[in-house]
Amino acid sequence: MDEIQNEIHEECGVFGVYSQETRNVARTCYYGLYALQHRGQESAGIAVSYADKISYYKGMGLVPDVFGGGNLETLPEGDIAIGHVRYSTTGASQLLNAQPVVFTGKCGKMAVAHNGNLINTKALRDEMIEKNAVFQTSIDSEVIAVVINSLSDGDVVNGIKKACAKLKGSYALVIMTTDKLIAVRDPFGIRPLCIGTTDTDFIVASETCALDSVGANFLRDVKAGEIVVVDSEGIHSHFMDNIPPESRMCIFEYVYFARHDSVLDGYSVYEARKEAGKLLARYCPVEADLVSGVPDSANVAARGYAEESGIPFVEALAKNRYVGRTFIQPDQRQRENSLNVKMNALRANIRGKRVIIIDDSIVRGTTMKKIIKMLRDAGATEVHIRICSPIIKHPCHLGIDIQTYSQLIGAYKDEEQICESLGADSVRYLTIEQLVSTCEGAHTNFCLGCFNGKYPYPLEEYEADKLKLE
Amino acid sequence: MDEIQNEIHEECGVFGVYSQETRNVARTCYYGLYALQHRGQESAGIAVSYADKISYYKGMGLVPDVFGGGNLETLPEGDIAIGHVRYSTTGASQLLNAQPVVFTGKCGKMAVAHNGNLINTKALRDEMIEKNAVFQTSIDSEVIAVVINSLSDGDVVNGIKKACAKLKGSYALVIMTTDKLIAVRDPFGIRPLCIGTTDTDFIVASETCALDSVGANFLRDVKAGEIVVVDSEGIHSHFMDNIPPESRMCIFEYVYFARHDSVLDGYSVYEARKEAGKLLARYCPVEADLVSGVPDSANVAARGYAEESGIPFVEALAKNRYVGRTFIQPDQRQRENSLNVKMNALRANIRGKRVIIIDDSIVRGTTMKKIIKMLRDAGATEVHIRICSPIIKHPCHLGIDIQTYSQLIGAYKDEEQICESLGADSVRYLTIEQLVSTCEGAHTNFCLGCFNGKYPYPLEEYEADKLKLE
Amino acid sequence: MDEIQNEIHEECGVFGVYSQETRNVARTCYYGLYALQHRGQESAGIAVSYADKISYYKGMGLVPDVFGGGNLETLPEGDIAIGHVRYSTTGASQLLNAQPVVFTGKCGKMAVAHNGNLINTKALRDEMIEKNAVFQTSIDSEVIAVVINSLSDGDVVNGIKKACAKLKGSYALVIMTTDKLIAVRDPFGIRPLCIGTTDTDFIVASETCALDSVGANFLRDVKAGEIVVVDSEGIHSHFMDNIPPESRMCIFEYVYFARHDSVLDGYSVYEARKEAGKLLARYCPVEADLVSGVPDSANVAARGYAEESGIPFVEALAKNRYVGRTFIQPDQRQRENSLNVKMNALRANIRGKRVIIIDDSIVRGTTMKKIIKMLRDAGATEVHIRICSPIIKHPCHLGIDIQTYSQLIGAYKDEEQICESLGADSVRYLTIEQLVSTCEGAHTNFCLGCFNGKYPYPLEEYEADKLKLE
Amino acid sequence: MDEIQNEIHEECGVFGVYSQETRNVARTCYYGLYALQHRGQESAGIAVSYADKISYYKGMGLVPDVFGGGNLETLPEGDIAIGHVRYSTTGASQLLNAQPVVFTGKCGKMAVAHNGNLINTKALRDEMIEKNAVFQTSIDSEVIAVVINSLSDGDVVNGIKKACAKLKGSYALVIMTTDKLIAVRDPFGIRPLCIGTTDTDFIVASETCALDSVGANFLRDVKAGEIVVVDSEGIHSHFMDNIPPESRMCIFEYVYFARHDSVLDGYSVYEARKEAGKLLARYCPVEADLVSGVPDSANVAARGYAEESGIPFVEALAKNRYVGRTFIQPDQRQRENSLNVKMNALRANIRGKRVIIIDDSIVRGTTMKKIIKMLRDAGATEVHIRICSPIIKHPCHLGIDIQTYSQLIGAYKDEEQICESLGADSVRYLTIEQLVSTCEGAHTNFCLGCFNGKYPYPLEEYEADKLKLE
Repeated sequence: MDEIQNEIHEECGVFGVYSQETRNVARTCYYGLYALQHRGQESAGIAVSYADKISYYKGMGLVPDVFGGGNLETLPEGDIAIGHVRYSTTGASQLLNAQPVVFTGKCGKMAVAHNGNLINTKALRDEMIEKNAVFQTSIDSEVIAVVINSLSDGDVVNGIKKACAKLKGSYALVIMTTDKLIAVRDPFGIRPLCIGTTDTDFIVASETCALDSVGANFLRDVKAGEIVVVDSEGIHSHFMDNIPPESRMCIFEYVYFARHDSVLDGYSVYEARKEAGKLLARYCPVEADLVSGVPDSANVAARGYAEESGIPFVEALAKNRYVGRTFIQPDQRQRENSLNVKMNALRANIRGKRVIIIDDSIVRGTTMKKIIKMLRDAGATEVHIRICSPIIKHPCHLGIDIQTYSQLIGAYKDEEQICESLGADSVRYLTIEQLVSTCEGAHTNFCLGCFNGKYPYPLEEYEADKLKLE
Repeated sequence: MDEIQNEIHEECGVFGVYSQETRNVARTCYYGLYALQHRGQESAGIAVSYADKISYYKGMGLVPDVFGGGNLETLPEGDIAIGHVRYSTTGASQLLNAQPVVFTGKCGKMAVAHNGNLINTKALRDEMIEKNAVFQTSIDSEVIAVVINSLSDGDVVNGIKKACAKLKGSYALVIMTTDKLIAVRDPFGIRPLCIGTTDTDFIVASETCALDSVGANFLRDVKAGEIVVVDSEGIHSHFMDNIPPESRMCIFEYVYFARHDSVLDGYSVYEARKEAGKLLARYCPVEADLVSGVPDSANVAARGYAEESGIPFVEALAKNRYVGRTFIQPDQRQRENSLNVKMNALRANIRGKRVIIIDDSIVRGTTMKKIIKMLRDAGATEVHIRICSPIIKHPCHLGIDIQTYSQLIGAYKDEEQICESLGADSVRYLTIEQLVSTCEGAHTNFCLGCFNGKYPYPLEEYEADKLKLE
Repeated sequence: MDEIQNEIHEECGVFGVYSQETRNVARTCYYGLYALQHRGQESAGIAVSYADKISYYKGMGLVPDVFGGGNLETLPEGDIAIGHVRYSTTGASQLLNAQPVVFTGKCGKMAVAHNGNLINTKALRDEMIEKNAVFQTSIDSEVIAVVINSLSDGDVVNGIKKACAKLKGSYALVIMTTDKLIAVRDPFGIRPLCIGTTDTDFIVASETCALDSVGANFLRDVKAGEIVVVDSEGIHSHFMDNIPPESRMCIFEYVYFARHDSVLDGYSVYEARKEAGKLLARYCPVEADLVSGVPDSANVAARGYAEESGIPFVEALAKNRYVGRTFIQPDQRQRENSLNVKMNALRANIRGKRVIIIDDSIVRGTTMKKIIKMLRDAGATEVHIRICSPIIKHPCHLGIDIQTYSQLIGAYKDEEQICESLGADSVRYLTIEQLVSTCEGAHTNFCLGCFNGKYPYPLEEYEADKLKLE
Repeated sequence: MDEIQNEIHEECGVFGVYSQETRNVARTCYYGLYALQHRGQESAGIAVSYADKISYYKGMGLVPDVFGGGNLETLPEGDIAIGHVRYSTTGASQLLNAQPVVFTGKCGKMAVAHNGNLINTKALRDEMIEKNAVFQTSIDSEVIAVVINSLSDGDVVNGIKKACAKLKGSYALVIMTTDKLIAVRDPFGIRPLCIGTTDTDFIVASETCALDSVGANFLRDVKAGEIVVVDSEGIHSHFMDNIPPESRMCIFEYVYFARHDSVLDGYSVYEARKEAGKLLARYCPVEADLVSGVPDSANVAARGYAEESGIPFVEALAKNRYVGRTFIQPDQRQRENSLNVKMNALRANIRGKRVIIIDDSIVRGTTMKKIIKMLRDAGATEVHIRICSPIIKHPCHLGIDIQTYSQLIGAYKDEEQICESLGADSVRYLTIEQLVSTCEGAHTNFCLGCFNGKYPYPLEEYEADKLKLE
């Protein structure tokens, strides 16, 4: 799936650094967020702890835009810093929904950054409101901050542990007090979180690519249900009570979310994607002249398909690498050409050819339909679609943020019906078992809810507005 | 005192509108804030209540800058709106300190805008933190919001009444829920607040000039200790318990803060200032060729002096009316000319003349010293300073925000010593009694703390960091 | 006339500095332009000559906005700098119409800044185009630059002298080469231009208030038809051929354009305005309770009226001093209140009173009509208008930029008809002779074209599009 | 070569549209420039011809940034539009150097957009200055505009034809009058330019990818020395005099400049790059475990190498796809990690492996050196570099803008010395003959000046400042 589709929104990236020397930790954070930019492009924020104070800066836009123009330099030197990138609705007032959330409460000054989604937000808010809390934003992080504070009795780690017993949903948290950096991963380990080190610093980040970007060595993943505390005495591990026996990381991290140079729970995203392409070749073969991927995210899988099938990998689609969020929409007359601006068929490569197109997933299917038409217009005689994951049949509120069945092309259709709807010559998906087998190197089981409707949390625990079931 | 001096910062303006028809109440708020711009130029915000929701927009800068570029139009139509202008430190992250504070709590959605200063902020914060509250900003409004919510039991008016029993300091509040507009004035009535009406709307505002700007008729002032509630059934009045027998409005509103076309507590600011000029002429006469005011704020008083004394009013100083906050500071070599850019002596008018300069007040005295030198350089043979208020001898935290004695030229000096320090030929102030007599038309007594050290709240109630006594 | 009316647009301010030491001449220019801001608020520009190069920066907006944010610091140190403020239509591409115009031609690198209007632009452009010139903007300065260059034979002063023989219209020019600062005033001296000095610098500026702002002493005015050249050998004076016997400065500089602390052609603007008020009292008396001026520009004259008549000066109107260009227009329903936001009647001062309102001039009359209504609504029993200049009966293209008769309320009406149209109790103007007598201290005669239709240049010399005569 | 290196700057993109119906031609231009964004990211501009007028908008930054925020909508509907993207130094005043250049001269209103570099700019400027021209910018387009105008006698095509006889260097021009769209390609055809059509429009563009982006069909390339005129009567072809027998397109268009989905002079860029990879495999083989490209530009060639050699294509480097121009530079301590932020080694793929890295070219070599170190640090046992073009041994001023030998790692080094300098295990380049053979499908010969020092124009025709020979 190309990010052009903008079909999947609700991801975030978190980063934290604890340095044994006072220094420009904000800058370290900046590079870390830069590497996590693919996880959220709508807002960015960094909070720095120094001399018993917390200073922060947040803004709407990409990391270099938010922190350029001297803004990064407004942050002081310090010992600890955390940062966050996120999607969010637009508008300057929405800046108030940017993270980290910084506040003062029983545990003194704190900052919280969150990747994931709670499914019992409303109940938690109501409970806290009942206890006199007020909420100034609509984001989970504020709820998490209030719950931790409310249960803390002044000890932040205790507060976190008790809070985690109440939080339902996915959460990878990076939390900072004036003397601690804390990393928390929900009991199912739904969102990824890892730890790295340099000579002087401890780093926590959503993905290993952010460790690489600051020259840190990978130490280990944060475990499902683990609370990692870094302070002046080093690194300490705490665990939540009642951790489920099996962790359930979101398999979509391998399919689409993560950068392909990251290693999640011990397994390379690149490897998983390439293997998915190979399995497609093995189990969903088709005679064709060339195989190509929807750029950029499906290129690795397409090469896997090519290797396994012997059908040559030939680029069918070129993507304009400057396409961003500020694109002016075409008017009525030009609408049909709208995809052309973002992506272009390589006519010479596909004229008269039978083409296999690999993509990581299909959500609504609107872009894929245009791609197929574009390829046929450019002279492809056949267009076969191969998808590196199963049909998405169910909503998800733990990460993909697809909240209704009606948004999903695959909710009530099988492969043949989807093929007809897209106008392809054939459409084939991996089975759930095949997808899982591409990730077997990972030290975790997976949440496959969007494919099989089985979520880590029972359906009855979801609040009404979180998961709309028809 | 000219605002160029930037010596007195801590003022704000509040505005609210309740309309009996759903309409563009944000726009009404915009014009109201525009008229109150002199009370705060650093940030502006408007919150609108509509269909059980509250939408808001805040920004750094002047009202037209914040709400220009289509930002005002992002706010929906509604029934109720409140707005705020304030001073604040710079920096985009400080946007989080802009008002109104909008939040959800026991009373549902609310917005709070505050003009004034609490003197027991820390104690209130600590008490609330003890009860699990978290604070995301450093402003009094958030504290007020949390206290009201915490004591409300779901009924906002009850909550306000109980909260007011705990709030110490000056506060004129405009509060909005999804169905009520509420105006609150502290038990001493330290900051002004008035009510106006149009055919369809109730308006509350810091000053009557804001009523005029939206075409509303003045109804009455909010009384000291009064809680005015406007809802679908009209206007209701509640009162706090234990209201002191005498209200104590800050007399500096007449001296400098308010716009001279406003009428505060029944008395015209213009009248008060003109009378001050007359009294100076009567009680502090001096032989001279002309009298002039420091533009723009002291011109009315200077004309009063001229009328009473018979000495002609002649402009001695011209002010560059484009001087604003973004001025680039002169370098070392040009420093001595820095005042010239902002203000210019009218040489032809003053060459060889004995000049009386009227100003409303003197805080540090640095600008006045430069003005005197400028006048002498332009050929004035004598420069006599007459001040429309007494010597400021004490810090204030209820409005003027002068927190230490060391900031005040008059803290330890008498008129003669001040005269010597400024390099004038003579310096005379009004006495406290004279100043009070200029405002005798007002339906209130006055806080004169900065002149006589007698504050509405006993000194022992001030928190350590609020009032630094030497 | 209040600048709120935005009725008169076409003015500019020019400034130049020649320093005998290499230094931050751009900063000197900045302060000079700041003082001339009232002459143009739409764009600003500074060009600096250093080491045989010319560097420049221009932008849309007020001087501190254009040169803030580090932009002033992008300009190098140098020996010579010139600057310009102007009105212009909005839009970033219009930046290309900002001045100074900087170019390279036969005389090497040059920069030109112009205040005034040519009346034979089209003929000059056509002649130059015929000689292969191309024009990239629509401004007179570019035409002037091209004509000078075309006639220069490499000697810039020669070029200027020959060019001036061809330029028809008003022009005060400040021109810079890499080693000269040149000031030029058209043969009628229609727009003002003066020279000042400091220990190290020569300064030229549109008004003396800009000399004051940089601490320079007034040396003398540039004479009509004079070309003043400042170079390393000092100051030299050249004169155009065929200078008319009488100079004809635009009398509107005294009436409205100039800052009242400036001295033009030897005579104080303040004095002229005060005298105009006195003459109105003497020749157009009326029984009334108070006299007031339309703020801020007519206040001096109103005081003159008060002094002469003995009727007390009382402020009737308060102006919001934050009103600027970015004001959001009221919608239909609020239109009638639009003036209220900008200006407010001081009810307490005028209720039940017979009011005289002094203004400098009336162009369209739309604002004056609203002011009269506002005063009546606030309780004035009579409103008498007194204008410090004669009825504007003719278009002007030399400065005021009123191009058609239809824009002028006075084109076909006499005082009585204007009075009826405005809804006043009486309206009286100064006669032409009276106005001229207010300025008799000036070392010049005047252009009175907008009053009497007699222009310095015969009507037949105006190009068709410049002066629309009906 | 990755664009991260920022080693090659001097390219531009041009686009033009002539529509047979008046419509939103600016929008068509916008999409065209969007597709050409890779040719210039520093400024963008569009000029529209309508009703005998030309309106334009230019700005600094990427196409969507310049024309977002409603700026595109400020342009009117029209019949003809031209646009330009370019590199340029930063700074708002440099906006004046953005293109198209719009001007009025003998041929009426015109606009000119230029891709390329003249080598006799100074002589042309001097000649024009001698004839009284003035120049307001430092760009070739203004010189071209002035020369055309000067020679036109009112007929623009004549003017262009005569001008082309004087212009030396590379130029692909798109020119617009109020009724004509004109495309010009220099006599050697050094820069590409093509023509497309839709039902209603003629399009000209630097590359075919821009035709695709607006849904136009490729018609043909503009020929070397051709002047194509589109007006209400259709499309007409004119030719310059003395066109050299052989065209000499810059081969670097195939190597790096053009988008790989474009077809230049009849030959696919993709094909050329893939063939280059294959030739490297054939002629510069090496035993290795995997082959990879420097992303994104060398990926196609790397796949060609893999196909030909049988060595698997495995991604060794992941690029952060959000890296842009506003990147905050690392401080001293983090400098060594600077590349990490932009690019990351896929450790799992390369640990213990012998790696072949394909790149399109090497200019300075600084980034390549860091890449090699990064790969070794990630565990590569051998790193072999293969370059899809010959050693760059000579400066170029016709497109690449390398002006001195000292900037080139290959100026005085052979493959072995370069290898040592980079720290690789081996470095091999294509020979000139091999590179030319990869493009043999093109209907042109090539300029190979940067490889062999033989330029289309004899060295003595270059102006001193254009080509610094040591």
